[in-house]
Amino acid sequence: MSSWSERSLIENISRVCSGSHKGLVKGIGDDCCEISKQGSWLISTDTLVDSIHFDRRWHPPALLGRKSVAVNLSDIAAMGGRPYFVLLSLCLPVDLDGEWINQFLDGAHEILQEFDTQLIGGDTVKGKELVITVTVFGQPQQCGSIYRNGASIGDSIWVSGVLGSAGAGLELLAAETKERMLDGMSRYQALINAHLNPLPRIEYGLDLAQSKMVTAMQDISDGLATDMAHICNASRVGASLEKNQIPFHSALPAAAMLLNRSIEDFILRSGEDYELLFTVKKECEKEFLRFMEEKGQTAHQIGMIRAGEGVFLQTESGEEEISFQGYEH
Amino acid sequence: MSSWSERSLIENISRVCSGSHKGLVKGIGDDCCEISKQGSWLISTDTLVDSIHFDRRWHPPALLGRKSVAVNLSDIAAMGGRPYFVLLSLCLPVDLDGEWINQFLDGAHEILQEFDTQLIGGDTVKGKELVITVTVFGQPQQCGSIYRNGASIGDSIWVSGVLGSAGAGLELLAAETKERMLDGMSRYQALINAHLNPLPRIEYGLDLAQSKMVTAMQDISDGLATDMAHICNASRVGASLEKNQIPFHSALPAAAMLLNRSIEDFILRSGEDYELLFTVKKECEKEFLRFMEEKGQTAHQIGMIRAGEGVFLQTESGEEEISFQGYEH
Repeated sequence: MSSWSERSLIENISRVCSGSHKGLVKGIGDDCCEISKQGSWLISTDTLVDSIHFDRRWHPPALLGRKSVAVNLSDIAAMGGRPYFVLLSLCLPVDLDGEWINQFLDGAHEILQEFDTQLIGGDTVKGKELVITVTVFGQPQQCGSIYRNGASIGDSIWVSGVLGSAGAGLELLAAETKERMLDGMSRYQALINAHLNPLPRIEYGLDLAQSKMVTAMQDISDGLATDMAHICNASRVGASLEKNQIPFHSALPAAAMLLNRSIEDFILRSGEDYELLFTVKKECEKEFLRFMEEKGQTAHQIGMIRAGEGVFLQTESGEEEISFQGYEH
Repeated sequence: MSSWSERSLIENISRVCSGSHKGLVKGIGDDCCEISKQGSWLISTDTLVDSIHFDRRWHPPALLGRKSVAVNLSDIAAMGGRPYFVLLSLCLPVDLDGEWINQFLDGAHEILQEFDTQLIGGDTVKGKELVITVTVFGQPQQCGSIYRNGASIGDSIWVSGVLGSAGAGLELLAAETKERMLDGMSRYQALINAHLNPLPRIEYGLDLAQSKMVTAMQDISDGLATDMAHICNASRVGASLEKNQIPFHSALPAAAMLLNRSIEDFILRSGEDYELLFTVKKECEKEFLRFMEEKGQTAHQIGMIRAGEGVFLQTESGEEEISFQGYEH
């Protein structure tokens, strides 16, 4: 293990920047980079801090490199857009292992290539603490972006996939690291992967935009209860969710039991699933399902938009308000 | 003194985001912000770390807020562009004084307004160390951006203003803080201001773009010797600089003597002056000076581009190579 050198870092970053995406006028190496493409730009940025947003004890560097990019790509997906360019700013402790950084950059490079996006700039500085800031640039489809504020009374509420996996995966990793108490972690690999290596739902978001039936959308980063409340607040409506309709992974019940937690806790309140949460135009449920089937995508209806405000969960025992009960970063 | 709360921070940032710049389709509060304007975008980002890039012992928070934005605006100036939008990402220690943050944001707001730019997003996270990342979005003039790689043999070399002030100002502040040895710091206020509160040369850069006589440009952030070498490397040429032509502030000689340093050291090797360094088409010196005079701008010719490579300083005692002798961040 040896700490990083400025020279090898710059070489490595230049390698990650390789490629010449159409629309990139000037890449790294001038005062600014310059991009040019007709239409508007979607921009999202996230800052991740060591031991707060990730834990290097169990997060392999290559997967963290992937995830740092993925969480920003997910914001582009949540607007129904396509990502093109990425900025990466790193604040690196001087004693950070050089090989760790190489693997981190390799992971970032890998996911950039998978989504046909290119690193075009950033900054690298020394600091006491590892801080990663990623900024992504994408563009909406011709039909425009999908915002959070378009939901209307009577619209149906949907999610793109299972919820609670990433939250359970994180707690399993923490418990395993702390107590080595968990036998058969491999049974929970899907949950653990959901935390370590989330995949942004880019193609899914593009399909939703193309359907022209989606009225509001965001990605689930803070948990269903909180992110649903964001859509409701922005759209000035309320939501009613059916507890029994919310999809979860088949390994979640056993994991929840092992962790002495309820399934409900994970699916409603744990963050970082990066699935898409969206509303579909009133009375378009069947047409929408047909459209998604043609696209080869599955979608899960979990509730309805209603008048008023707040997010309410329908259970066997009645109605319960759950607004903003999600994960706080 | 009391540490900051999430709520008041969000309120303050929302206040700084106020305004509705033409071209801003979607501001803060969705998964992405969205901007739309015809033409290409210039993008620059800088990360500043506490005690490395700034020192809170002598840097007032409002001026640091201004400077964090200014150094990025300067990169847009160095392309001959106009800035429009800004992202601000803050990593804040939990015990940081809330009033310090307010003043920092006030300073950032002030300079954003001065340059008719708008904060459109960012991120705020907790961390052990104060880290500030600013990203600026601007656009080139119709005549296009000015890059570093356009200098040709015979082009003249110019700077927009005095050099060495910011470096001397920083050392004066450090010496004053450490030893309280300096009487009459007010004599050096211009140097100190150059460090604490640099002004990006936006209008100057726009004038240069409009002149259509400028072949290469960058801003002086790492010192003349290093930044000139960047232009030379990008343009595959060499440079000859006349030591006696390099402009400096009238307070610099006394400051250099007080600090037991040479004037040359400051004007060649100290960073952060954020003046523009540029080359003008061969045999256009007089026409260029006339143009700048009409614009009410002063410009200082300091040398000529020549064949070969490297940056050379002409002094009374001959020629000396100074390539890359600048400040390393």
